[in-house]
Amino acid sequence: MWALRRDEHGARVVELEPPAPLPGTARVRVALAGVCNTDLELVRGYMDFRGVLGHEFVGVVEDGPSEWVGRRVVGEINFACGRCETCAAGLVRHCPVRKVMGIAGADGAFAELVRVPLSNLHAVPDTVPDARAVFTEPLAAAFEILEQVEVGPRTRCAVLGDGKLGLLCAQVLAGAGARVLAVGRHEQKLARLSGRGIETVLASDWRPEPHDVVVEATGRADGFRAAVAATRPRGTLVLKSTLAESPRTDLAPIVIHEITVVGSRCGPFEPALRALAEDRVDVDSLVSRRVPLARADEALARAAEPGALKILIQP
Amino acid sequence: MWALRRDEHGARVVELEPPAPLPGTARVRVALAGVCNTDLELVRGYMDFRGVLGHEFVGVVEDGPSEWVGRRVVGEINFACGRCETCAAGLVRHCPVRKVMGIAGADGAFAELVRVPLSNLHAVPDTVPDARAVFTEPLAAAFEILEQVEVGPRTRCAVLGDGKLGLLCAQVLAGAGARVLAVGRHEQKLARLSGRGIETVLASDWRPEPHDVVVEATGRADGFRAAVAATRPRGTLVLKSTLAESPRTDLAPIVIHEITVVGSRCGPFEPALRALAEDRVDVDSLVSRRVPLARADEALARAAEPGALKILIQP
Repeated sequence: MWALRRDEHGARVVELEPPAPLPGTARVRVALAGVCNTDLELVRGYMDFRGVLGHEFVGVVEDGPSEWVGRRVVGEINFACGRCETCAAGLVRHCPVRKVMGIAGADGAFAELVRVPLSNLHAVPDTVPDARAVFTEPLAAAFEILEQVEVGPRTRCAVLGDGKLGLLCAQVLAGAGARVLAVGRHEQKLARLSGRGIETVLASDWRPEPHDVVVEATGRADGFRAAVAATRPRGTLVLKSTLAESPRTDLAPIVIHEITVVGSRCGPFEPALRALAEDRVDVDSLVSRRVPLARADEALARAAEPGALKILIQP
Repeated sequence: MWALRRDEHGARVVELEPPAPLPGTARVRVALAGVCNTDLELVRGYMDFRGVLGHEFVGVVEDGPSEWVGRRVVGEINFACGRCETCAAGLVRHCPVRKVMGIAGADGAFAELVRVPLSNLHAVPDTVPDARAVFTEPLAAAFEILEQVEVGPRTRCAVLGDGKLGLLCAQVLAGAGARVLAVGRHEQKLARLSGRGIETVLASDWRPEPHDVVVEATGRADGFRAAVAATRPRGTLVLKSTLAESPRTDLAPIVIHEITVVGSRCGPFEPALRALAEDRVDVDSLVSRRVPLARADEALARAAEPGALKILIQP
C-alpha cells in the first residue's frame, strides 16, 4: 500500500506492506484523512517520530471482528495499555505507555490502510459524510474544553487564533451558549465565523479586555502572554497550543491575578460526532483542498501555506 | 514616628509624620511586623514602590471607631475600592484599583503606626500571642490553596520550596489531611516539618514522581519546570512564586498532560487565625530573629541570608 512515511530523511510517499491484523484491532481502509499542524511539527522533527503520519481519518473497517467489518468509522488516537493505574483511573488518553497514532509509536492514517484498536473506534452516523466525519478528532479536541471548564450564557470567552482549532473552539463555545470573541490574523478565516453569533476582531485592532475564559490556540510563542492579558482575575486560560520552543514567559501575572491555566489536548468523540450529525458546527468551510495520497507530501506543503485551513488527503 | 521607607535611594529608617486619621480607617500601633521575600524584591525595585514597607503585622488600634480602639488586630493587605465590578463580584482582593499595604500605593507596617481600612481588620483572639499573630497574613496565603483546590486524605501533595511560605503550605495541606512531601534545599528548614506527619526530601536526592497537587513555592526560576515534572496527568500545580524575571518555559507538558495551573496569592484570614488559636500550625520555629525598628534595614539584610526564615521587626 501507499503511505506518507517520515524517516530520518523526511516525509515521503512510499510503498509499504499493509499493517498485519492483530487481535483486538481493526484494519481500516482510509477514505479521507486530515492534515493537522502537529503533522507539520512532526515532519520538522517534533517527537522524533518515525512511521506513517496522520491521525485524523474516516474509513471503513476491512478486517476485524464481524460486528465491525464494513462499518464506517473514525478512531481515537491514543492507544492505551488498558492495564496501568492511569487507565484504571479512566484516564486512558493519558496512559503513560500509550502509543499515539501517527505521532508516537504507531503508524497513522496517511495510508491506504491503518490499524486501530477496537476500543478506539466510533461508528459514524450515516448522516455525516466523510468530508465532515474526518473533522471528528480536532472537533473532539475543541469539545474537551467543555469537559474541563464550566461555560454558560454569561461566560465571556475569547478564542485567540483563527487556525482550524481556533475556529472549531469558537464554534463549540458559542454552541454551549457562551459570548464568544474570536481574535485572529486573517480576515478571511474569521469571516467563517460570521453569522454564527460570534464576534470577531483582527489581532492588530484588538485591545485585550478581561474575559472569563480565554482559549489560547494561536500556535505562536507570543500567544500565551496575550491570553494572560485577556483573562480576568480568577478567570481561566485554556491552553491548546503546543510549541516546540520554550519562550520567555512571565508567570507572575498568573499568581497576582490568580488565573487558572488549563492544559487541554484530545477530547471526547461522542459530542463531536453528535454535533456533526446535528449540523451544529460548520466544518465544510474549513476545507481548503483535497490532495490524492500519491501527492501527500504536497498536501503538507499546502497546509503550511499562510491562509490554508484543512487539507484533506484522499487515498 | 520612625519607619522603614523605600525611595529612589533605597530603603532607610527615617522619621515621618504619623499617618493622618481618615474616615473608614484605623490607625494601628504596630507591635510586631514580619519580613517577607516580597519586601526584599520591593527593595530591589519590584513594583517601583515608594513608601513605608511591610505588610505582615499585628498591633493595637489607637485611633478609629470606638468599637475598634484598644483591640489587638491583624490586617488584610489589599485595600479595595468597594465600588467596582470586581468588588461587587466579591473579588475584593483583585480590585483593579486596589492599593496594597507596603507594596503598592499605601504605606506599610515597618513603622510605629500604620493606617488600615476598617474592613481589612481582624481581631486577634486573646490566646494568640503577637509572635504568632504576625504570621496570619502568610498563613492566610497558604490557606488560599484550600479555597482553590480540593484536598483530601487520598491527595498526594508535593510542596516545592522550604522557605517560610513552603513550610506553611506543607503544614496547611497536611492539616487538611493530605499526604504531603516537602522538597527543599535546607535540611535544617525541612526538619521543622518532622513529627508533623510530613515526609521531607532534599531536592538533590529527589526524583520527581507524579503527585495530584504540587505547590511551587521555591521562588526560583527553575521551580516551575520541577513542579510540572512532579504533577500527574490532569493534576494541579499551585503556583505561589512570583519572579521578577521571565525564564524560558516549556508549556507543552501542561497541554500534553492536561495539567491545571492555579495561580495563588493572598488568602482568607479567618481560617489562618483559627489555626493559630487552635495551635494547629507551628510558626514559632519559623522565627529566625527579632530586630528593633531602628535597625530595620539590618532586618532586611538578615532576611536575605541563606538559611534565614522569618525576621520580625519590633517598633
